[in-house]
Amino acid sequence: MLTRADAVALDAADPLARYRADFVIPDPSLVYLDGNSLGRTPRRTLARLGSLAGEEWAGRLIGGWDDWLSLPSRVGDALAPLIGAHTGEVVVHDSTSVNLFQLVHAAAALRTGRRVVAVADDEFPSDRYVVAGAAQALGLDVRRLRDGIRLGDVAVIVRSLVDYRTGEAADLAGFTAAARDAGAIVIWDLCHAVGAIEVDLHAAGVQMAVGCTYKFLNGGPGAPAFSFVDHSLHAKLQQPIHGWFSHRDQFETDSPYAPHLDARRLLIGTPPVLSLVGAEEGIALTAHAGMAAVAAKTTALTQFGLALCDQAGLMSPTPRDAARRGGHVAVVHRDARALVPRLAAEAHVVADFRPPDIVRLGCSALTTRFTDVYDGIDALMNLAASA
Amino acid sequence: MLTRADAVALDAADPLARYRADFVIPDPSLVYLDGNSLGRTPRRTLARLGSLAGEEWAGRLIGGWDDWLSLPSRVGDALAPLIGAHTGEVVVHDSTSVNLFQLVHAAAALRTGRRVVAVADDEFPSDRYVVAGAAQALGLDVRRLRDGIRLGDVAVIVRSLVDYRTGEAADLAGFTAAARDAGAIVIWDLCHAVGAIEVDLHAAGVQMAVGCTYKFLNGGPGAPAFSFVDHSLHAKLQQPIHGWFSHRDQFETDSPYAPHLDARRLLIGTPPVLSLVGAEEGIALTAHAGMAAVAAKTTALTQFGLALCDQAGLMSPTPRDAARRGGHVAVVHRDARALVPRLAAEAHVVADFRPPDIVRLGCSALTTRFTDVYDGIDALMNLAASA
Repeated sequence: MLTRADAVALDAADPLARYRADFVIPDPSLVYLDGNSLGRTPRRTLARLGSLAGEEWAGRLIGGWDDWLSLPSRVGDALAPLIGAHTGEVVVHDSTSVNLFQLVHAAAALRTGRRVVAVADDEFPSDRYVVAGAAQALGLDVRRLRDGIRLGDVAVIVRSLVDYRTGEAADLAGFTAAARDAGAIVIWDLCHAVGAIEVDLHAAGVQMAVGCTYKFLNGGPGAPAFSFVDHSLHAKLQQPIHGWFSHRDQFETDSPYAPHLDARRLLIGTPPVLSLVGAEEGIALTAHAGMAAVAAKTTALTQFGLALCDQAGLMSPTPRDAARRGGHVAVVHRDARALVPRLAAEAHVVADFRPPDIVRLGCSALTTRFTDVYDGIDALMNLAASA
Repeated sequence: MLTRADAVALDAADPLARYRADFVIPDPSLVYLDGNSLGRTPRRTLARLGSLAGEEWAGRLIGGWDDWLSLPSRVGDALAPLIGAHTGEVVVHDSTSVNLFQLVHAAAALRTGRRVVAVADDEFPSDRYVVAGAAQALGLDVRRLRDGIRLGDVAVIVRSLVDYRTGEAADLAGFTAAARDAGAIVIWDLCHAVGAIEVDLHAAGVQMAVGCTYKFLNGGPGAPAFSFVDHSLHAKLQQPIHGWFSHRDQFETDSPYAPHLDARRLLIGTPPVLSLVGAEEGIALTAHAGMAAVAAKTTALTQFGLALCDQAGLMSPTPRDAARRGGHVAVVHRDARALVPRLAAEAHVVADFRPPDIVRLGCSALTTRFTDVYDGIDALMNLAASA
């Protein structure tokens, strides 16, 4: 029988516990289990925004661009080791939707002759919308991704590594290998994985991926997303939005368009510097803690959460196999839609609801305490019992 | 004969002079004539970033989205009156390059049967690259925009209102009318016009426009851009990047994609909130000063600058007709590339160079003093004489 004392003991033994002090936490009593939607605010981000706006922008003015021009690739290079990528393969820019759009085009251009893009019916909605829009623009058919799907004519598959509802993690290496064997390129959406669990893109043979930085990486609301493309594809990489940040001689206005030779080919327009440094600071914190330690803590938090769910009689579709789950625990309940606001109002617990019947409990390694998991699930159990 | 005393007198009589105190200006002796590349830092932006990160994000966490979700349209609605647009017609999002890409697609979709996109050879490079990339994706031909161009088969024309080098402003109403008469849609790039001069999109019959917020609107480095689409086109507006922020029922994950009924159809992914509030604050300052007063000051600054150029024997291609120029004065000099860094190093004057031979002197109504214009051109004259 797990008790709150177990949670207290786990927090006391947690080697990452000290990182919580690196975040701005105005209300320490709040049980925040939604870092999988929006991570907390790193103290260094707050300081950085002040120095960026008050000193770099105000003081260096246009000269600030000497540093800022390289931010998308610099932040990408800092992110790369967290996902098993190399220098020059990751850029931080635009949004997951824009980046996915680019890569669907890029992947389709590498698989001319194939006329199908595959995506699951229950994939994250924005990904489904982007895939459908890109397919329409490209004249491709969209096929439902499911077990037993024919892949012989599939050019591109878009798939989330971690399911945004259940928290189930796909078999990154196995699925990628099967798709590659069949001649398809998988674009992995890492939004619900990056900064939570170990991801080794090269070990898994991944060719393309996108993801966001505002969830487990604590980059700030709407911080730019990232794109990964395996270096072996860079020379052939074509995407349709040719902005000046992808152009090698950016300020030589008479030179014909010639994109960079690495992932910077995917850059488009002038990047949102204030939001980009938020991503940089968030990534730096996770890198400082070490991805292995972060992933181990995520696993411990979700394991503790699942054990508590079992004990409380709450039903969870989140896998018990740690290798097959991400950074949140899902609880299925017919009153989920009503329970989430009640958790906030009656128990000071922030979780989120995903239709039709899921309560998501996010476990952010750098800020979530085992006591948060305990208190959140305890409150959920009590409210569910009275629902 | 104009002297520095004239500049001092003009500053003393300037009704907008007090707005300079609303900006962070660490070095008041710096002659900054590059607000047309990157505007200065509003004090309220600095404060807003602190409260946004330290209170809204850190304190409200995911609940902050209750306010942030509407930022792209709210900031767009605040910008709309500065360009003669209506509520619901402007959204602030992504970058000029992405937005232009969307509108080239949208305009082409409204002109099926026509297979040509027209853009000038000397249009701003990123616009040319975007047009070429979009045309390639759409299977359209790119035709060189110039006097006497055939428009009978042209679907879309992309054109800057203010030339980024010469500062010449196009005839917004006249060119739009001629294009519409010929059945083409003009997408106006307002980057070098918005926040500098009076722009009345509806009076000119404009159907589509894009522009940025980090130049004369002082939105901060890489602040998101904007898109304008005339309301009569909203219902038919189709663009290819279908992100969840364009979807009416954003959080109802089972609903089929159904975009908003206004300019929000152009929204894509999660917006970069930190950069977006920079745009909001910058736009608010210009709105507070009043666009008519801002435009009058711009005209006075550039007129003073042109008179000084004439007096100094500096050659400028910037039109003498105030109705035909934007917010910067261009000086043509064979040593322009070398003169710009010398201006900074030897005279504490920041201007910028644009190939092959132009020195740009930006006049930002809220921050540029007549003495800045005087000192900048005086320094340029002296350096040019010794070059």
